[in-house]
Amino acid sequence: MRTACTRAAAFSLLLATPAGGGEERPPLGFTAESAARQREIEAALVALPSAARCESLHAQLTRAPHVAGTDGSRRVAEEVLWRLRETGLETEMVSYDVLLSFPRRVEVELVTPRLVRLARPEAELPEDPFSREASLALPWHAYSKSGDLTADVVYVNRGQAEDYDTLAKLGIDVRGKIALARYFAGYRGGKSLEAERRGVAALITYSDPAEDGYVQGDVYPKGPWGPETHFQRGANVYDFIVPGDPLTPGWASVAGARRIPESESKVLPRILSVPLSFQDAREILQALGGPVRPHPAWQGGGPFTYHVGPGPAQVRLSLDIPREVRTIRNVIARLPGSDPDPAVASQVVLLSNHHDAWTYGGVDPSSGTATALELARALGDLARRGMRPRRTIVLGIWDAEEFTLTGSTEWGEEHAEELRAKAVACLNVDASTSGDRLSVSAVPSLRQFFHEVARRIPDPKGRGSVYDVWASDDSTSGRGYGVLAGESTGEPKVAILGSGSDYTVFFNHVGVPSADFLFDGPYGVYHSIYDSHEWMRRQGDPGFRYHAAMASLWGVAALRLANADVLPFDYSAYGRDLVVYIDEVEALARQRRMVVDLGPARHQARRLAALGPPSTAGGPEERRRRNEALLMAERDLTRPEGLPGRPWFRHLVYAPLPSYAAETLPGVREAIIDNDTARVSAQASNLAQALRRAADRLEAAAGR
Amino acid sequence: MRTACTRAAAFSLLLATPAGGGEERPPLGFTAESAARQREIEAALVALPSAARCESLHAQLTRAPHVAGTDGSRRVAEEVLWRLRETGLETEMVSYDVLLSFPRRVEVELVTPRLVRLARPEAELPEDPFSREASLALPWHAYSKSGDLTADVVYVNRGQAEDYDTLAKLGIDVRGKIALARYFAGYRGGKSLEAERRGVAALITYSDPAEDGYVQGDVYPKGPWGPETHFQRGANVYDFIVPGDPLTPGWASVAGARRIPESESKVLPRILSVPLSFQDAREILQALGGPVRPHPAWQGGGPFTYHVGPGPAQVRLSLDIPREVRTIRNVIARLPGSDPDPAVASQVVLLSNHHDAWTYGGVDPSSGTATALELARALGDLARRGMRPRRTIVLGIWDAEEFTLTGSTEWGEEHAEELRAKAVACLNVDASTSGDRLSVSAVPSLRQFFHEVARRIPDPKGRGSVYDVWASDDSTSGRGYGVLAGESTGEPKVAILGSGSDYTVFFNHVGVPSADFLFDGPYGVYHSIYDSHEWMRRQGDPGFRYHAAMASLWGVAALRLANADVLPFDYSAYGRDLVVYIDEVEALARQRRMVVDLGPARHQARRLAALGPPSTAGGPEERRRRNEALLMAERDLTRPEGLPGRPWFRHLVYAPLPSYAAETLPGVREAIIDNDTARVSAQASNLAQALRRAADRLEAAAGR
Repeated sequence: MRTACTRAAAFSLLLATPAGGGEERPPLGFTAESAARQREIEAALVALPSAARCESLHAQLTRAPHVAGTDGSRRVAEEVLWRLRETGLETEMVSYDVLLSFPRRVEVELVTPRLVRLARPEAELPEDPFSREASLALPWHAYSKSGDLTADVVYVNRGQAEDYDTLAKLGIDVRGKIALARYFAGYRGGKSLEAERRGVAALITYSDPAEDGYVQGDVYPKGPWGPETHFQRGANVYDFIVPGDPLTPGWASVAGARRIPESESKVLPRILSVPLSFQDAREILQALGGPVRPHPAWQGGGPFTYHVGPGPAQVRLSLDIPREVRTIRNVIARLPGSDPDPAVASQVVLLSNHHDAWTYGGVDPSSGTATALELARALGDLARRGMRPRRTIVLGIWDAEEFTLTGSTEWGEEHAEELRAKAVACLNVDASTSGDRLSVSAVPSLRQFFHEVARRIPDPKGRGSVYDVWASDDSTSGRGYGVLAGESTGEPKVAILGSGSDYTVFFNHVGVPSADFLFDGPYGVYHSIYDSHEWMRRQGDPGFRYHAAMASLWGVAALRLANADVLPFDYSAYGRDLVVYIDEVEALARQRRMVVDLGPARHQARRLAALGPPSTAGGPEERRRRNEALLMAERDLTRPEGLPGRPWFRHLVYAPLPSYAAETLPGVREAIIDNDTARVSAQASNLAQALRRAADRLEAAAGR
Repeated sequence: MRTACTRAAAFSLLLATPAGGGEERPPLGFTAESAARQREIEAALVALPSAARCESLHAQLTRAPHVAGTDGSRRVAEEVLWRLRETGLETEMVSYDVLLSFPRRVEVELVTPRLVRLARPEAELPEDPFSREASLALPWHAYSKSGDLTADVVYVNRGQAEDYDTLAKLGIDVRGKIALARYFAGYRGGKSLEAERRGVAALITYSDPAEDGYVQGDVYPKGPWGPETHFQRGANVYDFIVPGDPLTPGWASVAGARRIPESESKVLPRILSVPLSFQDAREILQALGGPVRPHPAWQGGGPFTYHVGPGPAQVRLSLDIPREVRTIRNVIARLPGSDPDPAVASQVVLLSNHHDAWTYGGVDPSSGTATALELARALGDLARRGMRPRRTIVLGIWDAEEFTLTGSTEWGEEHAEELRAKAVACLNVDASTSGDRLSVSAVPSLRQFFHEVARRIPDPKGRGSVYDVWASDDSTSGRGYGVLAGESTGEPKVAILGSGSDYTVFFNHVGVPSADFLFDGPYGVYHSIYDSHEWMRRQGDPGFRYHAAMASLWGVAALRLANADVLPFDYSAYGRDLVVYIDEVEALARQRRMVVDLGPARHQARRLAALGPPSTAGGPEERRRRNEALLMAERDLTRPEGLPGRPWFRHLVYAPLPSYAAETLPGVREAIIDNDTARVSAQASNLAQALRRAADRLEAAAGR
């Protein structure tokens, strides 16, 4: 099968490039002449990453817990700095003092109908030495309010707005109660904000085996899924309103910066919040009375019928989780561009990862950090051998991503002007590996680019290229950070960018074309004590070959962006997707009986769709003009005033939802949902203007 | 809400019948003059059924197990006969000697990796005295092969063809193994035949909590669903090939009839087969190794990850389940027609139910039998008061339905000629009640009829009419005996007739327009020891008001068919549905790249669709001609040669699948699936001829 496919592909390439004498077609953005040199550089790069070295780096990064703001995190930051320095890249450590949060006391008890002490630590597994660690005993949510309370419990399914609506229809009052919600189908911060709005007194969020336990597959250590005692730590914070240090919303937390009081923050929860394992949650669930869950989708994977309550189960919570200002440390490495034109050489291809973790970071994020260090080594090696990139490559390994995307956000806010002028793209790799299938979220203009890059990387299991495996996947990405992009072709799907990692400030705030990618796979120990080196060795990437493959893939992507004659952004794909988004929003308006005129936006989207992929034709001056336009076109899609209600989010085509997912055309869409005719019209006009700016710029540069 | 709806309906009726002076529109098939008398009769009927009497009848019928061929069943038959005799109807008991099957030994043991004795009895519940009954201790399948064997186990999900295909793709060989299948999504006989074809040595079918246990809702006695120890008895027999006594396939088992040897039967299984409870099956499931279930849909409701094996779980089966010829007893009651025209008076409206049960028959079928006896009492009462039906009403309460639809099939075969000439319709009620929502399966021509009848019956919970509750149901029927009919309107859905009850011989063999209906609801104790009077009192129909409502509904339906001026069959609905079936079969052919010419069949279907509902216009002679055509039109849709491979099934529009479900246009459809071009063409021609016969007849009678 594979042989036949490869042959067919080669044949069609021959037809496509009759003058090429059988040579490969140049990558998007490269002239035939530059392509040869680029192929040499990529061949050299792909030969460098070593799975064994990735394994060793991973073992070092994950040897102890390294929560942001702790000594463990400082040690990892210093180690990352030292490793990057070894590669020959320019390095620096950049610190900010930001509001974090740490647990002193987390007590949870079922008090009625019988006393059961909950909030128990995760089980020690004889097979995994990392599962014994006293400092990780407490289940907690960063930024939770502290306090004591005892109340009846209500089971609220996923804790989304429609779940509370369903309960209201059943006549169940959640006010003053403790809501017990399942994880997944929504970000924990989104569930908390919804609970607050409904008058809930405290929120318990637990890991149901239906989502990440035995219902999905064998549990750790036999398989990759979560045992019944695992719980999911994490921040409970409303950073879909504005991310970064809660005390400096919208500006950098540099020395002397203005800080708002905590009480003025719009992102800190006003209720108690705690995660529990299924082992703990089932004690509560099985003690609930009241109606049977109102819909089969509310039934979890426990071996009993779920009831909603309220009560007779009563729970006591006692939480002491102080919020504290502490120092975080971003580590930055830089490989300066070599182009003779300083305007080009100073353009930045940004590679992005973070180093802080809730426990050991086996997957999240130390797989990505190990990959980043191995890639930096390879780039340093190439530079020493004379293969320096034309544009500058900057690698940011951020701190406190797990809190509010804090490290990247503060740095992005500090350098917003420079990034706006110089940033070509942001390639974010958070976790690099939890399995063997590529999963990509990106702007539509980078879709073809990623298809080409993935064709370049051999699959470590010998199943053809990474692209071949990606294309054979009939499911969508397992992570659910975004919905799939509108365009439907035979090619692998690329998701749209939600929020949930460090590209957010660069993409949604500054307008830098962005992508986020990993090798994905079954992974049920997210943010649990089992997210360890041992898990990765046994389950996620035995042999660490996908870590090394990601270093190659990330590196090829970086070097194509850094060396391209013309930036490989296909705005015609953007235009086609925009037409689909506009169709969807119009359908929503019809459904809500709202009048919305998206004709002007549609016209501009069609202009973009008509552009075609970027051409390398013409002389250096033409290409320079085209590059300038391509560099700035994504910025055209932002607006300095941002979205209504959340001005930090400036991108008009995408914005994160409280669920990690992305929504498209958020300004118009939210105005329709709020039934605000005047706002619909203003937002439709903003959108059309943004698209027109981009279309004007790109058409002009294309000489039309 | 209800008041407003009622008003709106009255308003539109006024518009529809301006001459009626505000009176109700006559029911389908009645002239305005006859409608007044019919309304009186129906009002008298609806006033008669008593919930208290239904409860008492139900208690008597269910006081002991009454499996066909046992003394318990004989006692129930005699009681039914005696009760019917009391009503004043003409009664008879009709016996046949037929092949049944009874368990002497059922031993099931997990032997590897550890010894666990399985096939344990259902748990005794302190709340339900019926749950203590030594004669119901064994889990067994009637007609299973007897024998001893020990083999590795393979989990085969639902045990359908596609499940075995999935296992084959995983490289798992099921030959000689014991297959462990979940109940549901297919009839147990269908699973057995598929297992035989795949070379499986024995089949264990178990009740997974995902289908009828705690995943669905609270288990008995707290709720209506099955506890973990319940198991589903039943026949394992291939009566979708030919039902009735396996020794007289196609003819009646009357004294002196030819009997084939067992070895020549096409319907008796050639493998060992046994049902198990989840309590037992989980011992095997949790001992299985091999791959994790290949698809999430294979994961059941147990609190562990399902694996497929084979082994290391090994099971020993030892079954002694002799097949024996025993006597079964149908009870027949008759209320002769009063029409002055003997041709009309001798026409038969057939009411159908059975009296044998696997355990107590709490739902299946004694709810229906109690309802039937209460209805018979009401009909006898009306007759005494001078309200005799114009046409003859026959009530058949069959025996051994649970084996192979045996009692009804033998009687139907014995009286096939008379039924072909005289039977107006078959109204089958197996279980009458397991909840509070009407569920109807019927030929399309009876759809409007049932909508009208349901409007006539008040909902016992005061939610308007039975129709109103039915129309507010956004789900499909819970039973899954058939798929929904093609027509999509705002009116309640009517399913198509599959097989699974006693209408089969009348509908599929003789061509009598048929319907099957019940008040449906959550019911997880089917064929288990918990299907008792106690279950019905606590869960299914506390107060037995829906039993009484079904006596009214069934009675109104019977009396409308018996008294109608023109038989209320709307063949235009049949025609519209046929067009949908033809579309579907054509789509299937395209998908399989087969050429099929259904143009002629489509033309005939459109002729039927153009007929409109039956008119009561014209004089007595016109109505007589119209009635003759309406009486015979369903017979036109049958063919004496039957379907290829199963000649007993003569209806060309519907036939049962091995799954209880119905398929439409079975001759053409199966020929397409078998890729048999010549057969496709012959079957398409048979279909077109059948439709043409009906259309010719109905058009001629309509005077077109």
